[in-house]
Amino acid sequence: MTELEKGPQGRRRGRGARERIISASQQLFREQGINRTGMDQLCAAAQVSKRTAYQHFTGKDELVAEYLRRFDPSVLPGVFDRTDLTPRERLLAAFDIPPTTPLCPYIGAAVELHDPQHPASQYARDYKKAVAARLADTAREAGATDPEQLGEQLALLIDGAAARTRVLNADAFPTAAAIAAVLIDNAIPATAGDDRRREEVSS
Amino acid sequence: MTELEKGPQGRRRGRGARERIISASQQLFREQGINRTGMDQLCAAAQVSKRTAYQHFTGKDELVAEYLRRFDPSVLPGVFDRTDLTPRERLLAAFDIPPTTPLCPYIGAAVELHDPQHPASQYARDYKKAVAARLADTAREAGATDPEQLGEQLALLIDGAAARTRVLNADAFPTAAAIAAVLIDNAIPATAGDDRRREEVSS
Repeated sequence: MTELEKGPQGRRRGRGARERIISASQQLFREQGINRTGMDQLCAAAQVSKRTAYQHFTGKDELVAEYLRRFDPSVLPGVFDRTDLTPRERLLAAFDIPPTTPLCPYIGAAVELHDPQHPASQYARDYKKAVAARLADTAREAGATDPEQLGEQLALLIDGAAARTRVLNADAFPTAAAIAAVLIDNAIPATAGDDRRREEVSS
Repeated sequence: MTELEKGPQGRRRGRGARERIISASQQLFREQGINRTGMDQLCAAAQVSKRTAYQHFTGKDELVAEYLRRFDPSVLPGVFDRTDLTPRERLLAAFDIPPTTPLCPYIGAAVELHDPQHPASQYARDYKKAVAARLADTAREAGATDPEQLGEQLALLIDGAAARTRVLNADAFPTAAAIAAVLIDNAIPATAGDDRRREEVSS
């Protein structure tokens, strides 16, 4: 909570009710899950009435979808837009996830919601396809023989690392990165690789 | 529900209250999730009083842990105990999951529970480690150079396929199986492979 949000007598200034509800959902959905967080608790955390909440969102389903849309709209921009890395290095950088990162919210939503037609499940699906497409674009740039296949494989590895990190309560991204390196080396012909790779081949 | 369970006037015969509660949990936890299934609903489905339910389980936490313990106690016996397959074929058979299979209940529990110290989360972790250990044993039998590493990698692929199948609402196990084949071929020296592999190399 920023200072701007705190007002005298418990009233809030600054951001409007809609943003406060979304902010509360971002905290509570990640900390305790979507299904364990009720509208009552969200309204209390956001300091809005339920009447106000339902003026902004038709219901919790719509709020859950909006919560997901607020994450990372440009698909891992910190990885794919880095100009200091070769395409091959960008593919590997997608696995450089800090161990403290919470579970991917799209996997969380898909697991919790149990309904592929829920608007949040549909958004999670679109997002996951967009990640695979960005990986495929980068694989194409790196010279992969079948960039669509490599993109889908790397996307599966990211999801596997996310799920396994949660189940084991231990960082599984290094294991996924090691597999990714094998797949990338297999998929990218030596002549299309980056400089380091060419040097290895020629030496 | 079997005929044995149905009695006149809504009373049940056959299996006892404990088994009926577990049976109801197996259906409801998978169909609608752990957090959306309350003890009231479980008791109604099992046709037991809440008093009876709490005589058998100290609470929902204990029931969730017991629900997970009832799955597949011998770790994919349909795969690892097959004597008609070579060790390499058994490793690949672990990815031969029918597309209608519901999400892995251990991933579901770990995602829903949000608490690594919950007895069910601990059991999910132990189960996932046991799967990786069985894969490593089979990798050792197949002659892998680093069986522990290959076992951990294949376990991550299974979890990735499970999570991604749920998020995409489309079967991701074929993608995982293709990656597994690459890793297995890389990890198992040609001389240690099965007959087909030796033929390929010698032809």
